[in-house]
Amino acid sequence: MDFKPAVAHDSEVPLYRQVAEQIAARIRSGEVARGERLPATRELAGQLGLNRTTVSAAYEMLEAEGLIAGQVGRGSFVIGERAPSGAVDWNAMLERPETPVAGPAGGLGKAGISFAMSRPSRDLFPLDDVRATCAAVLAREDLADILQLGSPSGYEPLRRHLLDEARRQDLARPGDDLIITNGCQQALDLIGRVLLRPGDAVAVEDPVYTGLKNLLTGMGARLVGVTVGADGMDVSQLARILERERPRFLVVTSNFQNPTGTTVPLAGRIGLLEAAAANGVPVLENDTYGELRYSGVPLPPIKQLDKQGGTVLLRSFSKVSFPGLRVGWAVGPKPLMDRLRQAKEAADLHTDQLSQAVLLEFAQSGRLEAHRARMLEAGRERLAATLEACRQYLPPGTRWTQPEGGMNVWVRLPEPLDAGELLSRAQKEGVAYLPARYFAVSRQEPGALRLSFAGLPPDQIREGLAVLGRIFAGELEAASRSFEPAPAMV
Amino acid sequence: MDFKPAVAHDSEVPLYRQVAEQIAARIRSGEVARGERLPATRELAGQLGLNRTTVSAAYEMLEAEGLIAGQVGRGSFVIGERAPSGAVDWNAMLERPETPVAGPAGGLGKAGISFAMSRPSRDLFPLDDVRATCAAVLAREDLADILQLGSPSGYEPLRRHLLDEARRQDLARPGDDLIITNGCQQALDLIGRVLLRPGDAVAVEDPVYTGLKNLLTGMGARLVGVTVGADGMDVSQLARILERERPRFLVVTSNFQNPTGTTVPLAGRIGLLEAAAANGVPVLENDTYGELRYSGVPLPPIKQLDKQGGTVLLRSFSKVSFPGLRVGWAVGPKPLMDRLRQAKEAADLHTDQLSQAVLLEFAQSGRLEAHRARMLEAGRERLAATLEACRQYLPPGTRWTQPEGGMNVWVRLPEPLDAGELLSRAQKEGVAYLPARYFAVSRQEPGALRLSFAGLPPDQIREGLAVLGRIFAGELEAASRSFEPAPAMV
Repeated sequence: MDFKPAVAHDSEVPLYRQVAEQIAARIRSGEVARGERLPATRELAGQLGLNRTTVSAAYEMLEAEGLIAGQVGRGSFVIGERAPSGAVDWNAMLERPETPVAGPAGGLGKAGISFAMSRPSRDLFPLDDVRATCAAVLAREDLADILQLGSPSGYEPLRRHLLDEARRQDLARPGDDLIITNGCQQALDLIGRVLLRPGDAVAVEDPVYTGLKNLLTGMGARLVGVTVGADGMDVSQLARILERERPRFLVVTSNFQNPTGTTVPLAGRIGLLEAAAANGVPVLENDTYGELRYSGVPLPPIKQLDKQGGTVLLRSFSKVSFPGLRVGWAVGPKPLMDRLRQAKEAADLHTDQLSQAVLLEFAQSGRLEAHRARMLEAGRERLAATLEACRQYLPPGTRWTQPEGGMNVWVRLPEPLDAGELLSRAQKEGVAYLPARYFAVSRQEPGALRLSFAGLPPDQIREGLAVLGRIFAGELEAASRSFEPAPAMV
Repeated sequence: MDFKPAVAHDSEVPLYRQVAEQIAARIRSGEVARGERLPATRELAGQLGLNRTTVSAAYEMLEAEGLIAGQVGRGSFVIGERAPSGAVDWNAMLERPETPVAGPAGGLGKAGISFAMSRPSRDLFPLDDVRATCAAVLAREDLADILQLGSPSGYEPLRRHLLDEARRQDLARPGDDLIITNGCQQALDLIGRVLLRPGDAVAVEDPVYTGLKNLLTGMGARLVGVTVGADGMDVSQLARILERERPRFLVVTSNFQNPTGTTVPLAGRIGLLEAAAANGVPVLENDTYGELRYSGVPLPPIKQLDKQGGTVLLRSFSKVSFPGLRVGWAVGPKPLMDRLRQAKEAADLHTDQLSQAVLLEFAQSGRLEAHRARMLEAGRERLAATLEACRQYLPPGTRWTQPEGGMNVWVRLPEPLDAGELLSRAQKEGVAYLPARYFAVSRQEPGALRLSFAGLPPDQIREGLAVLGRIFAGELEAASRSFEPAPAMV
């Protein structure tokens, strides 16, 4: 080492760090080569007019950073920028600007009554029907084809069935095609991979499903939130945003949106399509919940209303049957579908074929429709129990959405309640939910929370909401007391 | 429209285009608003001192570009930047710099004897064992859990089984974790998503599996090929490349590489690890074929030899059992696995659980090992038939690799034969293969081709190679004749 660190005795930086940092910089730049021996601590201390312990401390710091290694009797050697082993520095490689939103620390699964998961009730799974369905698949002559490598477009008998259904329902235009994905989540992922360039804006609902937020921000997209009101996405705000931001695409949940449970009415669907078409912005209609309407009149999907070919419809078996079998699909213009197929092949070759065959058989045997009827009955009951329990237990001033289907109700607590702060207290009493921050794009609603009711039987819904009501009301009372004028000191 | 286009009569640009381009620019900038009426052609011609047909030609150009529309009797109107419908311009949105490598036009599936697919033989699938396995899964008490939403890390009983196996085989270090993916392809995809930044170099074998090439180039990576010889990746070349290019990571197939069938010997594995560690480059050991060794001594995986934690091991059930069930896994350092789990959740929530449960049962019941024994027996026979038929039928001067397992043999035809050009002739005679261009990174080998033998019974292998030998030998003879000196003209 033929340079001498310069030390400034009047610096706020301790002397040992000054020495260490200058040597470290020379090692990192390569000026001091790997394998080179450092001067003995006594020697360098003498050269610099420093105490020997100062130089020892500097060497210790360099050793801790993995830049040098000491060998007894031979002094200290430069071992380069990396750990002594030359090991991969995973932490440095995995640095990232943003961390995805994760569930609450400690998890939610252990709460006795969890309103936290937007998924169907496992108690409703028709296990004997599943067994009979699988048995039918296993008896098929083409079982070997199911086990063999398949197509990125999907298992052809299922793809054909879904495309015929889509055509019958006027959801597929003449130039459209259909691709099978691992649930809607993968369809969104593939579309993002094909369409997004770093920094692109994407218009989404605000609040929106956490999984979509994490996916898009992870891809470097800039999310532009469109406020969700009682009628879903605010269409006049959307029109302004599309005009101003020209987002790369728009994602909308037409039915029973997650997290709010709201549905875009017919006029809103038409207005949304007009705004999108006027700006040439593709619409991704995420319709995972549409089959789960418990009351009211079904509305035509945006895909059906769109006569200009700018909409892609995403659907899935996950919510209406079994989320553990990962099968969804996308219907839309062929040029896009062709590219999704390429992206799908790169991502994972194709979707699992056993589940595709099982779900096709489940649908074609009529068991899916029978299961859906039971899901609708249970869902209707659970939604009614939720809305009724909200009325009964939540403190005055609380508002909530009035979904006609799906799995979620959005609750807004009166000020100054903070649903995020109150969660831990609820969890202590065995009840879990997700506060609004998991779904916020740009608008923070500290008082809001999502109640996912579909997984709970009515008595647990009532019990859980009674607990929440008690906690919220108690906190509200405490808050109002703290605002009372203090009595005169006498 | 209150501006007048300025026309330059001495310009090389035709007058009509000068007029059209200036109006187009004003429409695109929004200065001339949508819905605005353009002056009549006669009027504008008068104002600009131009011939009326010049202005008409300008308007026609604007109309062809979708910027204006003419209505009989009402003149021309500005309709904005896009097509009259306001439709999404998918083709413009889907532009891409590179097209992935696709299979030969017309496909390969219809050839009577196809050496084109590196996949197991469907005839060997033990259908009754599969049925018994599924029946056992369907009888399980936790069937509802299998159908319910699962974990991004994988179905926990399978994950635990695989991690225990990995620990038992000394493949998982104390700080390692394991994540289940949709086959190895998705593990590669997720790692790319987590580690790659646009423009990063990635070191891969040359030639290499098409699916890896498409995946990485699709992500914007710059592929740096390391020549594959008889002993797999050339390690001394690799060391130079790692030093020079500092790639983001290295992908290596340690056993029975696709497409060459070669295996990296022990010394090569150690040298590769040293080169990677010296440069801090992570190693992705893609070991899809390792369980299919038909002869010779199994070698320790690179993952096992790596004591420094820079290696990730990718394995899969696809090749040794059923590619239609998409289940693979990655074992490696926990910081990376944590990020892969996040990426997996964003990509598709989790891997299909029915197939995970079926493959776990297939493994734990001993049926996988019994199936593997049959696969090894058949593979040994097929590989021997392939090598023997190469000797018997391929023309002198042809060379081929000598794999000890896997599914592929790499053949190099003597000059001037071009395997790509000869493919269509082979297909006409009912035999298919993939020529080297599908696998080339930077080295073109026009004479090379991949023979995927695992899907064919020995008699078809012999029959197919007899056909290929005849075509190649005939072409070689024709080529040698064409090089003969022409006789004197008399």
